[in-house]
Amino acid sequence: MHSIQHYQDLINAELNCRLERIDEPKGLYEPCKYILRNGGKRVRASLVMLAAKMFSPRYERAIPVALAFETFHNFTLIHDDIMDEALIRRNQPCVHVKWNTNTAILSGDAVMILAYTFFEEAREYITAILPLLNKTALEVCEGQQYDIDLEQALLTDALTNEAMYIRMIELKTSVLLAACLKAGAVVGGASASDADKLYEIGRNIGIAFQLQDDILDTYGNVETFGKKIGGDIAENKKTYLVIAALQNLNEGDTQELMRLYAQKTDSAEKYTAVRALFDKAQVLEKANATMNVLYEKAYTILDSLSLAEVKKTELRTFIDELRTREL
Amino acid sequence: MHSIQHYQDLINAELNCRLERIDEPKGLYEPCKYILRNGGKRVRASLVMLAAKMFSPRYERAIPVALAFETFHNFTLIHDDIMDEALIRRNQPCVHVKWNTNTAILSGDAVMILAYTFFEEAREYITAILPLLNKTALEVCEGQQYDIDLEQALLTDALTNEAMYIRMIELKTSVLLAACLKAGAVVGGASASDADKLYEIGRNIGIAFQLQDDILDTYGNVETFGKKIGGDIAENKKTYLVIAALQNLNEGDTQELMRLYAQKTDSAEKYTAVRALFDKAQVLEKANATMNVLYEKAYTILDSLSLAEVKKTELRTFIDELRTREL
Repeated sequence: MHSIQHYQDLINAELNCRLERIDEPKGLYEPCKYILRNGGKRVRASLVMLAAKMFSPRYERAIPVALAFETFHNFTLIHDDIMDEALIRRNQPCVHVKWNTNTAILSGDAVMILAYTFFEEAREYITAILPLLNKTALEVCEGQQYDIDLEQALLTDALTNEAMYIRMIELKTSVLLAACLKAGAVVGGASASDADKLYEIGRNIGIAFQLQDDILDTYGNVETFGKKIGGDIAENKKTYLVIAALQNLNEGDTQELMRLYAQKTDSAEKYTAVRALFDKAQVLEKANATMNVLYEKAYTILDSLSLAEVKKTELRTFIDELRTREL
Repeated sequence: MHSIQHYQDLINAELNCRLERIDEPKGLYEPCKYILRNGGKRVRASLVMLAAKMFSPRYERAIPVALAFETFHNFTLIHDDIMDEALIRRNQPCVHVKWNTNTAILSGDAVMILAYTFFEEAREYITAILPLLNKTALEVCEGQQYDIDLEQALLTDALTNEAMYIRMIELKTSVLLAACLKAGAVVGGASASDADKLYEIGRNIGIAFQLQDDILDTYGNVETFGKKIGGDIAENKKTYLVIAALQNLNEGDTQELMRLYAQKTDSAEKYTAVRALFDKAQVLEKANATMNVLYEKAYTILDSLSLAEVKKTELRTFIDELRTREL
């Protein structure tokens, strides 16, 4: 992510100086600092800054809003990792693993409150952006709930369908990216129409990004993909690919896919057999097509913004980088 | 609580009409509605309303703020009940018991966000009251952490002392009551000095209330006390009483108290033996004295408020009722 790298240092420094003021009780705040300082790419904060800069040279005013959204994102990571029983996050043990579940619940709560606290520094924008943060925050919880519902549903359940899956990833991932772009635009003084366009760009690339994740997990290049190929198949995860496959396969192949998806194993045989069924159902083509429509939509909206082309370059490069990533 | 009864219906109705607008996904919002509709005495919301009414006849403007603080309180109940492994809350199964821990984590998060959402309706007061809610919310988390730290500490640890215990209950319980009174005063248009006085009243009665809880659990009247007498002793809970006893007992009695507090049993023998040591250390007198100082301080501050006596009656009656309660 070269396009946003220059924001990372700024965000890390601003976050750090605020975290230094927080100390006791250590049992509460050490885990908060652990997750907030354990980096990540600061994508959400960077999107706020980048969007503000599109509309105003004084984009530093967006820093508190950027910190609020980035911090909110980190809160979701702590609690989601408990629910998903994840072990590792950004190459480090998850909070509930390094400490325990109660600590992860409570420090997650504190991280969410910190997000709202950083917001206080953005006094002029509070009435405009607080409702956006609140709405988005509830939607992210809704997305997590739909994810749980989908994971618990059978492949044959009515719930397990493409529209539901897209809605889930929209809520779980893309509305936060969308809100970050919109919030930055608002701070930058964008018109309501341009701010809404930024939101739509974020919504589209967020969904596309998640579809790409599903594609890379099964069809990625083992050399460049960060994690093991086939993890989703091994875990029987309900991805876009398996849902799309079920729409396109005949009765016999559907039964076979369901039989394979009843086994929890990371064997090469299972991966090969499932992937063969995916290929037969042409899910890679379908997923790529759906993803491309979303990226194209984002570019079209970007083109339509009432801004000089030079102001759009950074966001355009960011989308290009997302789209061509291999991990 | 006759003094606040007339606010309960108003608060319940206002909360209900907002909850009706929230629906899907049911897996997320049913637990939210369950805790928020399962009543309680609405003490926090009532304190906001009562304080606003002291300073303004248009106290209905405080409704969104009252709902925000009441809803925040309910969020803490959901997550605290997970951490404390509680089973029953307000005579109903806790959220994590009726559903499961993951549901309780996620719907607790949503209830906290709802609290901030109700706040949006109080546009004029957001910049004044958002920092108060944020600060208080973090302090409540700090109080919960100190409670965990205290419960994990040995009776002989340096941490287990009276000042620490008072600080813990101040953060865990009383700052929220204090913030409710202050927030109501701000909405009612009180001067900064009067608003701060309301905060101090809440802080003092909150700590006193919690000490009273400790006293009643051991020395209460079994006929009028809501729960079984001696629960804290059976659970070896670190209350004000046991901490005060350790300060006043000789070496031999201290050893005996620690021996008894190593047994987890609700036997009558243990209760009688521990209570005898408490009596020897005169902890009831000490706890009552500490509590009375706090209540007196609250009355003194109430007297000093620049308001007609008639405006103070409702809060005065509320404090009287708290002080003379037997459950």
